[in-house]
Parts: sequence; structure tokens; C-alpha cells
Amino acid sequence: MKLSQYFLPTLKETPNDAQVASHRLMLRAGMICQETSGIYSWLPFGLKVLRKVEQVIREEQDKIGCHELLMPLVQDADLWKESGRYEDYGKEMLRITDRHKRDLLFGPTAEEVVTDIFRRHIKSYKDLPKCFYQIHWKFRDEIRPRFGVMRGREFFMKDGYSFDLDSKRMRETYKKILKSYLKIFQRLGLMVLPMRADTGPIGGDLSHEFHVIAQTGESGIFYDKKYDDLKENIAEVDVEDLLNLYASTDEVHTEKDCPLKKEDLREARGIEVGHIFCFGSKYTESMKAGVAGPDGKIVYPECGSYGIGVSRVVAALIEVNHDEQGIIWPESVSPFLVGLMNLRVKDEGTSQACEEIYGKLKNAGISVLYDDRDEGAGFKFSNMDLIGLPWQVSVGPRSLANGKAEVKNRRTGEKKEISIESLIPFLQDSLKDVL
Amino acid sequence: MKLSQYFLPTLKETPNDAQVASHRLMLRAGMICQETSGIYSWLPFGLKVLRKVEQVIREEQDKIGCHELLMPLVQDADLWKESGRYEDYGKEMLRITDRHKRDLLFGPTAEEVVTDIFRRHIKSYKDLPKCFYQIHWKFRDEIRPRFGVMRGREFFMKDGYSFDLDSKRMRETYKKILKSYLKIFQRLGLMVLPMRADTGPIGGDLSHEFHVIAQTGESGIFYDKKYDDLKENIAEVDVEDLLNLYASTDEVHTEKDCPLKKEDLREARGIEVGHIFCFGSKYTESMKAGVAGPDGKIVYPECGSYGIGVSRVVAALIEVNHDEQGIIWPESVSPFLVGLMNLRVKDEGTSQACEEIYGKLKNAGISVLYDDRDEGAGFKFSNMDLIGLPWQVSVGPRSLANGKAEVKNRRTGEKKEISIESLIPFLQDSLKDVL
Repeated sequence: MKLSQYFLPTLKETPNDAQVASHRLMLRAGMICQETSGIYSWLPFGLKVLRKVEQVIREEQDKIGCHELLMPLVQDADLWKESGRYEDYGKEMLRITDRHKRDLLFGPTAEEVVTDIFRRHIKSYKDLPKCFYQIHWKFRDEIRPRFGVMRGREFFMKDGYSFDLDSKRMRETYKKILKSYLKIFQRLGLMVLPMRADTGPIGGDLSHEFHVIAQTGESGIFYDKKYDDLKENIAEVDVEDLLNLYASTDEVHTEKDCPLKKEDLREARGIEVGHIFCFGSKYTESMKAGVAGPDGKIVYPECGSYGIGVSRVVAALIEVNHDEQGIIWPESVSPFLVGLMNLRVKDEGTSQACEEIYGKLKNAGISVLYDDRDEGAGFKFSNMDLIGLPWQVSVGPRSLANGKAEVKNRRTGEKKEISIESLIPFLQDSLKDVL
Repeated sequence: MKLSQYFLPTLKETPNDAQVASHRLMLRAGMICQETSGIYSWLPFGLKVLRKVEQVIREEQDKIGCHELLMPLVQDADLWKESGRYEDYGKEMLRITDRHKRDLLFGPTAEEVVTDIFRRHIKSYKDLPKCFYQIHWKFRDEIRPRFGVMRGREFFMKDGYSFDLDSKRMRETYKKILKSYLKIFQRLGLMVLPMRADTGPIGGDLSHEFHVIAQTGESGIFYDKKYDDLKENIAEVDVEDLLNLYASTDEVHTEKDCPLKKEDLREARGIEVGHIFCFGSKYTESMKAGVAGPDGKIVYPECGSYGIGVSRVVAALIEVNHDEQGIIWPESVSPFLVGLMNLRVKDEGTSQACEEIYGKLKNAGISVLYDDRDEGAGFKFSNMDLIGLPWQVSVGPRSLANGKAEVKNRRTGEKKEISIESLIPFLQDSLKDVL
């Protein structure tokens, strides 16, 4: 993609009202723009990241046999009246009345809809277990939306729902999905800790939140120091071993009840990016979603819900991957892998060399954003640092005279001159994990 | 994908309330299920088709330099008050009030939001032309939703918006997008005719609807018989030539004003799947989205809107691709390319042969749905015809004794026995256009 033909409205100034780094940088890098309180448009550069995160989640969920579907954004209030949650949910639910005066709502979650789909189509224990998921937009009318897409009102979420014959099998499903979540976050380059959590008003007895450790996190988290050795490869750790380690958010943790000695306890701040919990037969019973059991009698399946805040994950990625100059994208989610800068567009030789490099990168399947605009080198360098592509390649008349280009790794800051011929093989090798 | 592990709730009976073939078949083939009036869930099999259609549209729009973004589902009413449409739009707009008593709405279209994004980021004529698009959910509170997703309330739509310096350039953009639309429909295997259309309450002087010719179409269409020779390769026809041919919907056509002799006129029914129109500077003026022109004076860009009903396209595809037995998917959008049937799952040799074929198809990159359920052959054949995958492969003890499988082309109905060894090469060759 050539920048002269792209829509990347970057900002030089830091927006006044953005308090956290991810919010500031998403605005400055032209990823999002606010429409109204807690509601954002995703501009092309931001949308690419959102889609990459979505795709990683999809691949890992499909791998463990979950079924992707898409439930309506606008739901019928009758289902929520049936489950008993319509009155309970409170003001976070956006209630709507249609032209025929029927009560609708913008779905904040989908336990009712998925239980309705389940009861209409699944009649026998032989069709269990089943796990459905969607990656779709939700709306929660937060009283004080803040921190950009970190705590918005309209947000993109993966929500999954499992149905099992009994609670033993439900726990197996729960652990399988927990492991899948650890893989997802590991692929996204996010180090997360699963934390025992309060089950809250939704009920149930087995519940974990997934927190990314970040100074700007809204939650306090307490955990066994052994995690620090495990967190890099957490997806490979046995789930039982993991669940036996102490880890709790400040909603649950108390000094008195903590089983760890003070020297074995770590304290940090976390950003909640996922939440999973079992709630048994709460909805299958209230909504009469029973199936015929092995003995012919009706059984109400045991269920769990599994969420990842997809748009929040994008913000969390930036919270833990940035510096003073801007974003530093992990390769797995970067909108483009290489940023190519033409340092003198009016110089014919430089432009020709850049065009050739651009063509070769594309042919090699390496996504590239080419800054071919007629702007100064200083602006281009700082703009490229701001948007945070993993590798930068700059070409100007001086380096070109020696047949070379400069390559910079955005994360390490390491720069080196490299001959134009060896540029593509070098990048292919450096990026081999994601090509 | 193995059917025993998939979620494909097909129905034997035809649902009573479904009047058109696509609605009946989408319900019967387990593609969608209704949640409430005009609102549907997309089940895994239907969602795959929706995503394929979406991807074809995305690829073709990106090719001509349109910028994909994602605007909010819930919009601020203030923008619509600014453009003057808030009162005009009528009851099809789903109006919402949030907890702070602010007026919101579920977007039926996005001219206001995109013009707002434009005016906040684009300040100079040098940044024109710009064309933005999104593929996103919309809501129109139809008074009588009907025909399934053909005329639903919540629907999936590609909507694009162009901004040009003057009306001459706007017309060039319009023609470029018209051509892109013809390519999109050609890739989807839909023969469409662009029809001069009434511009309706939205205003503007250049407007075309894209209609798929189908007996169940809601619109009457009248066109020059020369189209019949062009329609198979319509994307290759010069756009000017095409626009000079007479083609009109019954909203515009009158016998008196028609320039064609009766014998040169064709009459048919059509399903509207796309609509494009120019409306000049209507929104850029009312919303003060001017840019600095070449002489420094403020210019209000000339605009167009470009829509494709993505969920309706799925229904239209079925209207023109089905028979008494079920759906007949074009290869370009089929959820899977091959349906493999094990006709005797309890026979070890048959099951082993099927597993091997299944593995080889997957290795060859041919998507396959494997019916490994313990059901009778008759049920499997009719179920496979219903869901309409382009190629069927059936394996039973009898054919296997001769080292053979039966292959059937769903569209032609042609069957032949083929040796197991030559099965994969045969399918690779038959499907080479989409592999």
C-alpha cells in the first residue's frame, strides 16, 4: 500500500482528553476516531489490527471444535423476560422500542439467544457437548465510558457458550477453552495470567479472568511468584497445575485468606481481556432447554460462557507494546510488516529503487506500507515510529550511492545498512515466523 | 469438517411461513434461524457463505483503491439533525435513548457519519478523490419484514461513499465503482443488470440499481434485448456502452417514454442486490465538510453512495441456484467444495477408505464436508442434495469392492464411477478455477 493513496490521518499533537497510552496512540496513529461518548469508528489502519486479532481467535476456537455463528445485534426482550434477566440487568442494557411498540434491546451478551438456538435444534444428549461462539459487536451503556476503546460502549467481543451433559464434563470443556485462550493470547504476544474471579451477578462457581499485566490496568492482581517463570510459555503448562497456583483479583483477594507467604506473593496491575465462567443449568432450566438423557429423561445441560474483549485486546496490545515515539506492533498483529520510506521522492533514482523494493516485497508476500509522500525525512521517520511497524526500510540518495538501504527494527531500535540485493532475503528470514 | 462434529440442523419439512425458495432453503439447510420478526441468526453453514460473499466484495473494492473502515452501529442523532434527515427518515429508523437521555439511533445508512469523518480529517482538494466503504450490519425497521433475509430488519450491507472535487470527477468515480460492482457480481456467479432508477428521497441525478433476474423478484424490470447477449460477460463491457442501453425498473419505466420498439424490449422480474447513486454536495454542504480548493477557496466535494445488500445476495444466489431437491452452490461461494458420503459407517473398509479420501482432500486444499454419521444412504443423498455442495463423492462397500467411488456433479446431476486413485486429481482439475 502506498501512503499517498492510503487513509492514515495521523496527528502530531496528543489529544487532550486521552488519559492512557493506548487511547492517545490509537488516535494519533489514525486507528480510530470518536463518534460520540464511548463509540468509535475504526479507520483502515486500526481495522486491520482488529481483524488480525479476530482471525487468531477464530483459528484457535475452530481448532478445538467450537462452532462459529452470528447472533443478532438487536434481540427480542421476551427471551430476557423468560430467563429473568430483563429487569435485573440494569441501565447498562440499551433498551429499544420498535415501530410496533415491541421491546427490543441491543445485546450486551447472548446467553438467552444461544440457549434459544440450542433448545430449538438440539434434542438429545447424543448431540452434546456443543460449544458455539461468535465474534460480534456488543453494546453496554457504561455510565462513564473512558480510555478509548478500552472501556467503550460499543465494543467488539468474542463470546462463546458451552453445553454439556453434566458438571464433570462441563469442567473438562471449561479447561479445554481455558487452554485455547492461553494459546490465543500467546499467539497475540500478550502475557496473560488467568485469575480466579468473583462470579458476580451472573452466578456460577468456576470463573477466571484473563489479565494482561500493565501499569495502567484498572484491576489490582495478586499471584504466586511461580507464575513469573511460567508466563512466557503459559499455553504449554498443564491447566490443572496452573489452576492450583494462587492468583486473584483485588475483588476476591484478602490478606487474611491468602494461602501464600508474603515473600511468595506478587502484586501488579492488570487489564482484563477475557473472562470465562461456568454457571450450570441456570439458563437451560429457566428457558426449558432440556435434552433427552441416556435413560430418556429430560436433562438440563450444564453451561459456561467464554468472553474475549477483542477491541480491548487491541488497546491492551498497545499498552504493553509502545515507547515514547509510538506503537511497537508484535509481528502477529501488525497491520503491515514493513514500512518503506522514500527519503527523497523527487530524486528519480531513489524513487525507482523504492518502487523496485516495494514490488519485490509484495511479490515475496511481505505486507508493506510505502511512504511515497513528498514530505521531509524527519517527518517520515517520526511518523513511521508512531505507527509502529516492526521493520523500517529507508532509502535515500546517499545510501543508494553505495547500493544500500537502511533497515531498522522498531522494537530494538537496532539499525544497519544493508545492500539492496540482500534486503528481501534478510527480511524474509527475520519475518519467517509470520510469513 | 466431519458432519458428526458439525452443527448443521437441517429440516425435512418445509417451514410453513416461508414463501420464497431462498427463505425455505436457508431454513431447511440450517443456514439461518429466525429470532424475531425480520431478525435472524446465521448458523455456521450460512455464515460461511456470508463471509465468502463479503470477501469477494472486499477484494474488488480494495482493488480500485477504496478504503475499508468500520463505522459505529449506534450513531449519534445530532449528526442526522445537522444533515436535516433526522425528522425526514421516518419510522424505518430505529431510534434509541441512552441512560443519559441522549438521542441515538441504529444506523440504517452512514452518509452522515462518513461525512463527519471526512470533514474532521480531510482539508485539501489534494487529498481527493477518496472513497470509503464498510461491510457492516444495518437496521431498518421495515413495517412488514418478509422473505427471510431478503427483506429483513437487521441486515448485512456493504456501503461505500465517494468524495470528489467536482461533478465531472464524481461521474468518473461513479463509473469506476459501477464496473467494480459488475465484477463482484460476475465473480459471485450472479448475472445482474444495472438499471436506471428513481433517486428517491435521498436525492441526486445519477442512480442505478443492480438487479438479478429471478421470477420471484419484487421489481418489474424492462431492458433492451441486447443485454441478453452481454450479460454473461457484463464486467468486460465498456461502461458507457452499457449505460447507453435502455434498462429501467417499473418505478421509472413508462410505455410512452420508452425509446425502444416493442420487439426490442424485454420484460422480467428482478431482485435488487445493489444500488448506487450520486447526490452531489448535499451532505458536504449541509454538514460544512468543505476542503480548500486549488485557488484556496472552500469547495464542497461531490459525493456518491454505493450499496450492496450482502445478506440479500446470499438469498438471491439461492433464488437462481436451486432445484426441487435443494440449493446448488456456485463454486465461488460454496461453504465446502465437496460433500463426502460414507454409505456404510459400520463397514470398516468403507470407513477407512472414507477417512483416507477425507485426509487427501484436506491435504489438497479442497474444503470437504464428510458425512460420517450413522444414517441411511437415502437420507444422506437427499441431505447432501439439499445443502447443495458442488461435488458429491459417495463411498459404499459395493463400489469399493471395485476400488471405486461415485462422483456426482450437483448442478448437472451427472454421475460417474471413478477409481479411488484418480478421485483427487479429477476433483482438482474440476475445481481448478477456485483452488
